[in-house]
Amino acid sequence: MPAYATNMRLKFPIVALVLEIITIILFGMFVVYDDGKHHGHGHDDHDDHSNKTEHKKEPMDLYPMFQDVHVMIFIGFGFLMTFLKRYGFSSVGINLLLAAFGLQWGLLMQGIWHLEDGKIKVDIFKIINADFSTATVLISFGAVLGKTSPVQLLIMTILEITIFSINEHLVATVLEANDVGASMIIHAYGAYFGLAVARVLYRPGLRNGHENDGSVYHSDLFAMIGTVFLWMFWPSFNSAIADPGYTQLTAVINTYLSLASCVLSAYAISSLVEHKGKLDMVHIQNATLAGGVAVGTCADMNIGPFGAMLIGLVAGIISTLGFKFLTPILASNLGIQDTCGVHNLHGMPGILGGLAGIVAVALGKKKVSGKAEMQAAALASSLGFAVVGGAVTGFIMKLPFWGQPPDQNCFDDSIYWEVPAEEDENEESLAHADHSKNKAEV
Amino acid sequence: MPAYATNMRLKFPIVALVLEIITIILFGMFVVYDDGKHHGHGHDDHDDHSNKTEHKKEPMDLYPMFQDVHVMIFIGFGFLMTFLKRYGFSSVGINLLLAAFGLQWGLLMQGIWHLEDGKIKVDIFKIINADFSTATVLISFGAVLGKTSPVQLLIMTILEITIFSINEHLVATVLEANDVGASMIIHAYGAYFGLAVARVLYRPGLRNGHENDGSVYHSDLFAMIGTVFLWMFWPSFNSAIADPGYTQLTAVINTYLSLASCVLSAYAISSLVEHKGKLDMVHIQNATLAGGVAVGTCADMNIGPFGAMLIGLVAGIISTLGFKFLTPILASNLGIQDTCGVHNLHGMPGILGGLAGIVAVALGKKKVSGKAEMQAAALASSLGFAVVGGAVTGFIMKLPFWGQPPDQNCFDDSIYWEVPAEEDENEESLAHADHSKNKAEV
Amino acid sequence: MPAYATNMRLKFPIVALVLEIITIILFGMFVVYDDGKHHGHGHDDHDDHSNKTEHKKEPMDLYPMFQDVHVMIFIGFGFLMTFLKRYGFSSVGINLLLAAFGLQWGLLMQGIWHLEDGKIKVDIFKIINADFSTATVLISFGAVLGKTSPVQLLIMTILEITIFSINEHLVATVLEANDVGASMIIHAYGAYFGLAVARVLYRPGLRNGHENDGSVYHSDLFAMIGTVFLWMFWPSFNSAIADPGYTQLTAVINTYLSLASCVLSAYAISSLVEHKGKLDMVHIQNATLAGGVAVGTCADMNIGPFGAMLIGLVAGIISTLGFKFLTPILASNLGIQDTCGVHNLHGMPGILGGLAGIVAVALGKKKVSGKAEMQAAALASSLGFAVVGGAVTGFIMKLPFWGQPPDQNCFDDSIYWEVPAEEDENEESLAHADHSKNKAEV
Repeated sequence: MPAYATNMRLKFPIVALVLEIITIILFGMFVVYDDGKHHGHGHDDHDDHSNKTEHKKEPMDLYPMFQDVHVMIFIGFGFLMTFLKRYGFSSVGINLLLAAFGLQWGLLMQGIWHLEDGKIKVDIFKIINADFSTATVLISFGAVLGKTSPVQLLIMTILEITIFSINEHLVATVLEANDVGASMIIHAYGAYFGLAVARVLYRPGLRNGHENDGSVYHSDLFAMIGTVFLWMFWPSFNSAIADPGYTQLTAVINTYLSLASCVLSAYAISSLVEHKGKLDMVHIQNATLAGGVAVGTCADMNIGPFGAMLIGLVAGIISTLGFKFLTPILASNLGIQDTCGVHNLHGMPGILGGLAGIVAVALGKKKVSGKAEMQAAALASSLGFAVVGGAVTGFIMKLPFWGQPPDQNCFDDSIYWEVPAEEDENEESLAHADHSKNKAEV
Repeated sequence: MPAYATNMRLKFPIVALVLEIITIILFGMFVVYDDGKHHGHGHDDHDDHSNKTEHKKEPMDLYPMFQDVHVMIFIGFGFLMTFLKRYGFSSVGINLLLAAFGLQWGLLMQGIWHLEDGKIKVDIFKIINADFSTATVLISFGAVLGKTSPVQLLIMTILEITIFSINEHLVATVLEANDVGASMIIHAYGAYFGLAVARVLYRPGLRNGHENDGSVYHSDLFAMIGTVFLWMFWPSFNSAIADPGYTQLTAVINTYLSLASCVLSAYAISSLVEHKGKLDMVHIQNATLAGGVAVGTCADMNIGPFGAMLIGLVAGIISTLGFKFLTPILASNLGIQDTCGVHNLHGMPGILGGLAGIVAVALGKKKVSGKAEMQAAALASSLGFAVVGGAVTGFIMKLPFWGQPPDQNCFDDSIYWEVPAEEDENEESLAHADHSKNKAEV
Repeated sequence: MPAYATNMRLKFPIVALVLEIITIILFGMFVVYDDGKHHGHGHDDHDDHSNKTEHKKEPMDLYPMFQDVHVMIFIGFGFLMTFLKRYGFSSVGINLLLAAFGLQWGLLMQGIWHLEDGKIKVDIFKIINADFSTATVLISFGAVLGKTSPVQLLIMTILEITIFSINEHLVATVLEANDVGASMIIHAYGAYFGLAVARVLYRPGLRNGHENDGSVYHSDLFAMIGTVFLWMFWPSFNSAIADPGYTQLTAVINTYLSLASCVLSAYAISSLVEHKGKLDMVHIQNATLAGGVAVGTCADMNIGPFGAMLIGLVAGIISTLGFKFLTPILASNLGIQDTCGVHNLHGMPGILGGLAGIVAVALGKKKVSGKAEMQAAALASSLGFAVVGGAVTGFIMKLPFWGQPPDQNCFDDSIYWEVPAEEDENEESLAHADHSKNKAEV
């Protein structure tokens, strides 16, 4: 094992400030406000996740949708990861740090492909996509949660978003595949990227678990804040960049129904596989969202409310079963320690979404020759970039000078945060209490 | 007392999956996307809670309002009930389960009355109403919180929403009564339905309370998340299905002002009736919302900002007094154990709203003969369906094989949930601490 | 020290009810719904924070923006202050009380300057401004958090909003200064008003701190709910009353980027100045928001994305340094005990925003002679009204019969709230602990 240098005092501030200053300089060179003078080229904007053109009317039309997505990124992902008993500060706090940097970086990386007169013209559509690009990082963050330093994670942010933007451009513009809700290019990509990183950063010392790798009662409730906000606003995530009007409405309805159906199957399977038929919070916090992931690719297609609900039903089942049976196997047999189980929430449901998209296109009324093949290529491309990109990123993150925490300090905020002295106090008072009780018994 | 069979392992998964599959089949038969080709019949849609026609412009116009209502249903109701010290998982988790199933069932039950070419055409307006229909169940859930099994509650969901849809149709289409914010058809109905169920499920064993039937410091803070989100978005709840334009604006302003005024009276009365003039969290969490309930029926009427504030003022007073003086009497004298005090937040304020609506219509400028009588009939109908429907539902829920918890396991997540070993750990660490201390002393 | 009479039983209910009833009467006399018949005078509305006219189209256009601001006021400010270990009820609860009364009072005080036919016509624009006016009080609340009674705070609310409305009118209508995001008239004003009050209410007895003037692990997580909601919706705060269209888009983009940039610098400096390079939750909860404050005045100006990010970068640095080095000096040398450090989050960044506005106007393309001077006068006016108004208000609040808590009961909910028995248990165990310690010492 490398010698650990987890004191961030110089490392972290320098990396963070240098990255931000470089970013500001790049913004100074390339980024301007949208002035509304590019509607002729409007088409370019909208290839990001869809090959249909959006008939934008007012610059602020998409703003409420943007705010819903914004809440998913910062509250949803941030609090979903607070389930760990002693890692809440890092979950919400580092989530904020990575997303705040990631959205700036994503705006640049995605914008490069859509320059107008050599400039990136920022509008609501572009900041929605910038938020989207950070989602890939936050998903991967879940796989390595508790085992990485802020510096390592900033490095992952840069690399993952850069590679994401290449794959996104390939999928949307070159292959012209549909992925309006990004099952493939965000969820599957983010999950397998993170799993590849986790594999490279495998810790044999955690083979038998870690006392802090678990929840307490209130940390599970904080996590439910994240779950419920993700669940509620997912229809916005899947429809934000869909064609306005009835296509967007279709994306909302499909996601709304898929999620509702998914809740029932996730609860049913959780009870079925758990001791005495009890519900497991890990399943409820995560598998109830799989329906949103899985319906993403074909959210704006005419799959019928019935089709959307079937996708949600299946997603809830495989996701819950994955948490129960697959995650332990990945950890013990493949050396993939997936802290949040992103493989079950984003990985498998993301692939399911990609496959559903292929089927939907193949069975679709308006047959387009080769369309199904393009969808398949998009899924393969997303998985390929994820695994290779994640592995390379993992090796860079493994370099010994990024302040990675030693095994015993994993899943513990106190290594990177000033933590109030609560615990010690409690144990002390409890110990004393017990002590005095013993005394009283004498 | 029946022999308890609280192991949900087969019961719950089977009920949940069978219900979901039946629902999916019904959706396959009857539910299609709105294609915008029914504006001629648009009128029908809007009789749901209002007898005025909506001039819909764009399919997504109501989407931000829908999301506000969505947050009230899933975060608002869910977290409001987390005030119990050991029942947070069930409060948020079962709330999610019931609402996720209820919105699907509500979409069907409400849609039956508005078929177009034999189909239910889903649009934003209909999913707002589907969310509304679940609110009745979540209100009733509050009355029986901690004393019922997930299976019992799923049964309540089906029956309560089915009966709600009948009463709603009667009130809105047959009686053509106004109830834009649903004081009568949601709040009063949901409250008295739940109280009737609670009466039938009366538990003499809890006559003297239960150690877990109370809050702890942090559980009261979690509950405030629910309270504040309900409070903030209530103007959306009361105006979502109002006529667009200035009528909708009126509904927003009346609700905004009624709630603000209600906060002052709720705080004042709480301090007045409490020991040493201290504020009671139960009152703050609930009575501050009574203004939203009470202004519901006449939210879109020209009652004047001044009228809305008077309604809120009165609602805050009666709600707080209800919690302090009426709830204990209901429990001890009438055998109605109302866990969350829904009678004070939804019952009495709902009736107040119905009465305010009668007065507002009677004094209204544009006199319509018989209108006031129709409003009164709507209130009576809502109460009648609630009490009878709730009683019948209660008897069905009382059947001994739905896994109802025994008295000693009430208000405790651990009977239906895997709960982290926090407590034990503390005792353990306490033991360790003590042990080591003894060692040290030796 | 005055004799303390902290029993609120009569004092608080009477003050609260009398204030509300007077307010309702004033609403009855002066407030009506907007009927859309004043577009000719529409200009008046929009002088509130901007001297440009808004081309209002539909009465509900601004509603989603209003709800974002609403969330910032009630969830954002309310939960941000829950970081104190034993003061969460008061933070969220009194925040709700003050904001609920303040928005009614603000609607009257701001409306006086824009009467139409002797009436205040309420529309979404006016309720957004009413919410804004409460922000000044909630900022000042942060400075005196834990050391004042509900009655004292209601008095502060009336006086602060009344004075705010005068300064706002002077700045917007007389000086015609730009302050779309209100860096000067809300943030700087609210901060220095609160600091002046805190100075007058200086408590020598707290010179060496107070055991409850600190956080515990979960209270810091509750505070992050407030932080993240403020952070996410700040673009709405800064753009809500901007000219619609591309000007509003500019305000959104500038705020979005300034906040993102600010996060990086706040984290970097926090790590740089803290023991072992660890992050400090106080900095993360507050300094990450300074970018939103500082970009407020020039949010709708053409400062370029690059300019907005620079402002955010600087704001994050000075805010974090302020928490680390300036707050202790203010307390020890100037007798200003600033509980939440509002000087660092709202005070200095507010002034920075005002200065940035002066520079932006001076360097602006369309030169307007004297414009920069007007901006400077607006800043001076805001600071002057704040300090003088705050001092006067402080002396009124200091009168001995408002139930101010004694030093030992500061930062403790239990003096004004019924607190669940959890505490007693702790105290008991602590007592035991102490007891046993004594025993051990013997």
